[in-house]
Amino acid sequence: MQRLNYKMSKDRLEMFSDGVFAIAITLLVLEIKIPKHEELLHAGGLYNYLLHLWPSYLAYVISFFVIGIYWSNHHWMFTFIKKTNHVFNVINIFFLMSVAFMPFTTAIFGDFVNDREYTNAAVTIFCVGFIIPPPLVLIMTLYAGHKHRLVDPHLRTSFLNGLAYKLIASTTLVGIPLALSFHYPVASVCIIGSTLLMFLIPPTPPAYDNDDAEQIDE
Amino acid sequence: MQRLNYKMSKDRLEMFSDGVFAIAITLLVLEIKIPKHEELLHAGGLYNYLLHLWPSYLAYVISFFVIGIYWSNHHWMFTFIKKTNHVFNVINIFFLMSVAFMPFTTAIFGDFVNDREYTNAAVTIFCVGFIIPPPLVLIMTLYAGHKHRLVDPHLRTSFLNGLAYKLIASTTLVGIPLALSFHYPVASVCIIGSTLLMFLIPPTPPAYDNDDAEQIDE
Amino acid sequence: MQRLNYKMSKDRLEMFSDGVFAIAITLLVLEIKIPKHEELLHAGGLYNYLLHLWPSYLAYVISFFVIGIYWSNHHWMFTFIKKTNHVFNVINIFFLMSVAFMPFTTAIFGDFVNDREYTNAAVTIFCVGFIIPPPLVLIMTLYAGHKHRLVDPHLRTSFLNGLAYKLIASTTLVGIPLALSFHYPVASVCIIGSTLLMFLIPPTPPAYDNDDAEQIDE
Amino acid sequence: MQRLNYKMSKDRLEMFSDGVFAIAITLLVLEIKIPKHEELLHAGGLYNYLLHLWPSYLAYVISFFVIGIYWSNHHWMFTFIKKTNHVFNVINIFFLMSVAFMPFTTAIFGDFVNDREYTNAAVTIFCVGFIIPPPLVLIMTLYAGHKHRLVDPHLRTSFLNGLAYKLIASTTLVGIPLALSFHYPVASVCIIGSTLLMFLIPPTPPAYDNDDAEQIDE
Repeated sequence: MQRLNYKMSKDRLEMFSDGVFAIAITLLVLEIKIPKHEELLHAGGLYNYLLHLWPSYLAYVISFFVIGIYWSNHHWMFTFIKKTNHVFNVINIFFLMSVAFMPFTTAIFGDFVNDREYTNAAVTIFCVGFIIPPPLVLIMTLYAGHKHRLVDPHLRTSFLNGLAYKLIASTTLVGIPLALSFHYPVASVCIIGSTLLMFLIPPTPPAYDNDDAEQIDE
Repeated sequence: MQRLNYKMSKDRLEMFSDGVFAIAITLLVLEIKIPKHEELLHAGGLYNYLLHLWPSYLAYVISFFVIGIYWSNHHWMFTFIKKTNHVFNVINIFFLMSVAFMPFTTAIFGDFVNDREYTNAAVTIFCVGFIIPPPLVLIMTLYAGHKHRLVDPHLRTSFLNGLAYKLIASTTLVGIPLALSFHYPVASVCIIGSTLLMFLIPPTPPAYDNDDAEQIDE
Repeated sequence: MQRLNYKMSKDRLEMFSDGVFAIAITLLVLEIKIPKHEELLHAGGLYNYLLHLWPSYLAYVISFFVIGIYWSNHHWMFTFIKKTNHVFNVINIFFLMSVAFMPFTTAIFGDFVNDREYTNAAVTIFCVGFIIPPPLVLIMTLYAGHKHRLVDPHLRTSFLNGLAYKLIASTTLVGIPLALSFHYPVASVCIIGSTLLMFLIPPTPPAYDNDDAEQIDE
Repeated sequence: MQRLNYKMSKDRLEMFSDGVFAIAITLLVLEIKIPKHEELLHAGGLYNYLLHLWPSYLAYVISFFVIGIYWSNHHWMFTFIKKTNHVFNVINIFFLMSVAFMPFTTAIFGDFVNDREYTNAAVTIFCVGFIIPPPLVLIMTLYAGHKHRLVDPHLRTSFLNGLAYKLIASTTLVGIPLALSFHYPVASVCIIGSTLLMFLIPPTPPAYDNDDAEQIDE
């Protein structure tokens, strides 16, 4: 009964988080602007308008992919996080807050990156959107992992430490395009693009003390 | 079979509520306004515009946090509410209605709090958004708890009474910033801010007659 | 295994439908208009603007309640609908289409009902929003119930017939305010209001041939 | 335990996907434009305005139906896809990205198809919206089915091959209205309309090596 209750607790956390991820990711499309009739006259017709929207499409693809990966990693974290409590719920809320903010930063990027005057600011805010979530994931990991508070009791401490280092590294890594964005927005976008490729690498499988459980998650 | 059906019933209530919470919380971001090109000229560029949006960011953080806590508490309530019925579904709908209204009050607050002329009204509506849900949670608690209608049969009546008193107290507490908002909006916002800190305290674990079940929820 | 697969099938149908219900219900708030600065000057300040929005609040409450009840009834139907198939999925999609349309009819109602010139049309479209779902629920019931295709094999045919008659009656009933709306919109709104009170009555518990299962759903 | 973990994994993939489907499908309604007071004067009143919105209603119905069928087919695919991994999650994210894009293409279609000057472009983008998802479903199928990587080990290879051929055929089929749209938009829309009728046909039940499992789904 005790276990069941814990499980359910975690289930609703996952359900709620999945909801927020799913909505944030789908809201991205609302940020691609539907033109008004007047605008089409200046844009040289609908075909032209649609072609010139490419920064919005690019922003859509990048942000969709990033939120998707956050979902996938959240999902993966909950294969070794086994329960939740009030504090962890609160940290998770702040994490979701940072993910749900991305449609805003994406919209600004899509609308203004192609506008010489505002390119820098558009890239800066886009990078800000990407730099907030990693430290919150780090806090989640540290809190859940501290003395195996919420994680599987058999999970290796070395695995948790490795994860923490990776999160610190990735936060720092996103700091580079952010710093560059003020003067070299193009370099910034290139770095973000190549970082995304790293996201294609599957996360390390969690390591457990009892070996036979190790190959559980692919 | 009887039990299973009840459980499922409750499952869909939770699933649906989680959906509404997740959507209401994520819609908040849509209320942060994407500027139009013309507006940026008056705002002194995109960097400036983004910095001057701070009331919207503040509103986003506060409302996201408040809805998140409502979700967490709803979640917590359903560790001792064991089933549902038509009437409870209807009360829950009204509760969700009050939660889903917050993106509106948040948007008004974010857009006008910084505008001397409208500060009072902006804070008033923001407080209205916060004062409607607690009485509805109270009604939910009273209805579910009455003669242990929907709650765990082992749940202590004293626990339910304590919860009811807390909800009455918190409704009254939100009344203070609401009353102040008409003349002292700044004081109002400060009180709301400090009330939020109370939300960080985890809810009391439910008390059951059979002791061994007591430490179930953290 | 066969049973499990069927169950899951139904689970995803419910999950997806709950999602659509939850989103449609929460999107309603987006239809309450956030004023622009210029509009407030004509409206006589923010307090006045917010007070004059009452038709939008009313529309929000009515539509939230109606969608909520549809959710609750859908939930209730799936206590005796035990499985699904492709055709039923398709009918359910059309039903959800009609539910997800309500934010549009609600927005039109909220924006124009208070505008003498457009009151009739605003009420007409609001009624149209309410008249489309019942026939689709009827089709769902008839399809699922035909020779106990998808419902519990012990469900009484008399119960299914009773349900069908009720749905025909309620479709007809919503037809009255729709017909009246072209000339007597006020009467229309009053009838809709009173019909809503009927929604507070819990649905009849499903009747099964084996008596002991009868008191399952409250 | 190993199995359980896999199952859960798949559960969250389905939950998340259902969320995205449900949101994308419900967002469609936001693309039907609420008129402003000024616009009604040119439109000849609210009744007239609402009648002239028919292309938006049509776009709503078509896109709702298409996304609904994608949901239903996704649901059906997961009766024989038994687990997931990081790569499959990523492919699924790209698939969802293409589905969540449809509210945009639908909005453009609804707003401009009735506008002689822009009809072609409106139909083209609408077709683009429909042609991106099928190849991604194909990739999902091929990846999951390769050496029975993620599918039921008893699933017949011939069934998987048949599915792949169908997906190639349907991608090609959507290519025709896309190609025609540049010059013959009306023909394009007619072809899309008739293709939709094919969607009413239930998908073939998956074929397993052990015969008794064959009649599981419908």
